Amino acid sequence: MGEFDLIAALRSRLPEEGGRLLLGSGDDAAVTSADGVNATSVDAIVEGVHFRRPQSSPEAIGRRALSTALSDLAAMGAAPGEAYVVLGVPEDLDEAGCLTLFSGLEAVAAETETLLAGGDITRSAVLFVAVTVVGHAPERESLVTRGGAAEGDVVAVTGELGGAAVGLLLLERGQDGVSDEIAERLIARQLSPRPRLAEGSALAASGATAMIDISDGLGADASHVAAQSGVGLDIDMSAVPLAPGLAEAAGALGEDALELAAGEGEDYELLACLREDSVEAARAAVVDAGGTLTVIGRCIDAEAGVRLSAASGRELRVRGFDQLT
Amino acid sequence: MGEFDLIAALRSRLPEEGGRLLLGSGDDAAVTSADGVNATSVDAIVEGVHFRRPQSSPEAIGRRALSTALSDLAAMGAAPGEAYVVLGVPEDLDEAGCLTLFSGLEAVAAETETLLAGGDITRSAVLFVAVTVVGHAPERESLVTRGGAAEGDVVAVTGELGGAAVGLLLLERGQDGVSDEIAERLIARQLSPRPRLAEGSALAASGATAMIDISDGLGADASHVAAQSGVGLDIDMSAVPLAPGLAEAAGALGEDALELAAGEGEDYELLACLREDSVEAARAAVVDAGGTLTVIGRCIDAEAGVRLSAASGRELRVRGFDQLT
Repeated sequence: MGEFDLIAALRSRLPEEGGRLLLGSGDDAAVTSADGVNATSVDAIVEGVHFRRPQSSPEAIGRRALSTALSDLAAMGAAPGEAYVVLGVPEDLDEAGCLTLFSGLEAVAAETETLLAGGDITRSAVLFVAVTVVGHAPERESLVTRGGAAEGDVVAVTGELGGAAVGLLLLERGQDGVSDEIAERLIARQLSPRPRLAEGSALAASGATAMIDISDGLGADASHVAAQSGVGLDIDMSAVPLAPGLAEAAGALGEDALELAAGEGEDYELLACLREDSVEAARAAVVDAGGTLTVIGRCIDAEAGVRLSAASGRELRVRGFDQLT
Repeated sequence: MGEFDLIAALRSRLPEEGGRLLLGSGDDAAVTSADGVNATSVDAIVEGVHFRRPQSSPEAIGRRALSTALSDLAAMGAAPGEAYVVLGVPEDLDEAGCLTLFSGLEAVAAETETLLAGGDITRSAVLFVAVTVVGHAPERESLVTRGGAAEGDVVAVTGELGGAAVGLLLLERGQDGVSDEIAERLIARQLSPRPRLAEGSALAASGATAMIDISDGLGADASHVAAQSGVGLDIDMSAVPLAPGLAEAAGALGEDALELAAGEGEDYELLACLREDSVEAARAAVVDAGGTLTVIGRCIDAEAGVRLSAASGRELRVRGFDQLT
């Protein structure tokens, strides 16, 4: 298959006009109808920084690229709309690899009802996928920022934490002492994160005051909310739901499960702040959306900063994740 | 300056909320108000493929990345709105270089009234800049696609062609036999293309039936219009306006000026098709917008394909540009 054929093959798999998409790929720009407000986020994953081959298959790379971008829309409570993808293709990724990577993008697009509305493909010395996602909401007030939490608000998280971090360690160091089933599940948390779109939408509708996706790590992302809301966050690490199998795998690897859950990122769960009286309704709404919501702390005075305390009274370090990665 | 400081420095230079921008950078997504239709295009430039250092300064790389993306909006006749930038930073581009690259983006944003609404920055083994631009129009019918030309329509181009191609040769081979003034001007056409936004808007308002920006080369881009409109294009190369100094520089380099103007891309001028009776009004509108418009041919029967004929009767080859670059 030649390079023109590859582009034609990819283009033929993009959706036809319909719904919001008034003009699809193949012209100078895609044209979409607009109403309400757009929430737009860009996110890139780069070989050697965010993933390695062959640990990550081309399909997993495609899945991950779109999922992590959509996670930002989930954290706003926006409904996913369109995605635009730039693919940087090195010489050693052949056409079949490109098509498989695209299949990963398509799978996530189908699961989340996101339209792949356009893209660009270029040669590059290193494989990268840069994704722009556009979400929609009726009005600005429908969306949840990082900046609306107030002292006294309850802090909650969706799903379970730490799985992606220990999954990465299992990939890097091998799976000795960990059952195949558990290893597989934890590695999937690393390679194929799921954007919590339905949960984010439910939380936004339930009056969440602030929201962020946990990509940099619980401590670092809590710090972002603290800084932008002007509050502190007191988090009880004993209450944080841990990924099933995390304790076993961390033990086998000689790692501290709580450190992994607090300090490492890439779980792509949501951290939300809620007024005390909206927590139960929010939890029910998240469960209705197919997820779980667990209270893990409270917003406190800004002076206190972000505290991650374990049951023993031990304080976990809030690690600042280097964002230039 | 540390990496966090760099991100903070870049973020502090992004625009404040205002106008269409309801929530700027620093949250999970930027929020913009929407009305009418959005035209969205993505475009990436990669070191070693689209530019080389130090031939291209960081500022020129930033300028080029945003200009080439905006050129796609010009080709639709859309008004520029927002831009989202992903910057892949290799180890050997220091913080000062990143800031200078950003200055190039800022300069083009200011010149074109485009809002830098968000972005992402990541480590990468190779420098790349991926830009998503969003333009606006009242309705779908306000925008011009590649697919609306009909047999008998006139074919016209803005500005002059061939400058970017010979500018690249001057960079690669040196400037022997070419005056400094001419070399500088031609090299600028390569390194700092200008998106023809005002011209594109004027052409759209003047009833252009099809439009494309000349990025792949006159012949290749004419072929795109031909394929999507279902017409042939008969182009008189003797009528094509050549970049001032092109003939002199091509002569010094032993190259054919017409071949460069017909076969090489990156001029980022616009090719437009117009009904015969709208050409004069379109020309006046483009001149009012600060540009020039030159008739170079006519749409013919699809069977005839794309023909580039020089005065002597010589036919220039229509080169297919490899899009995977």
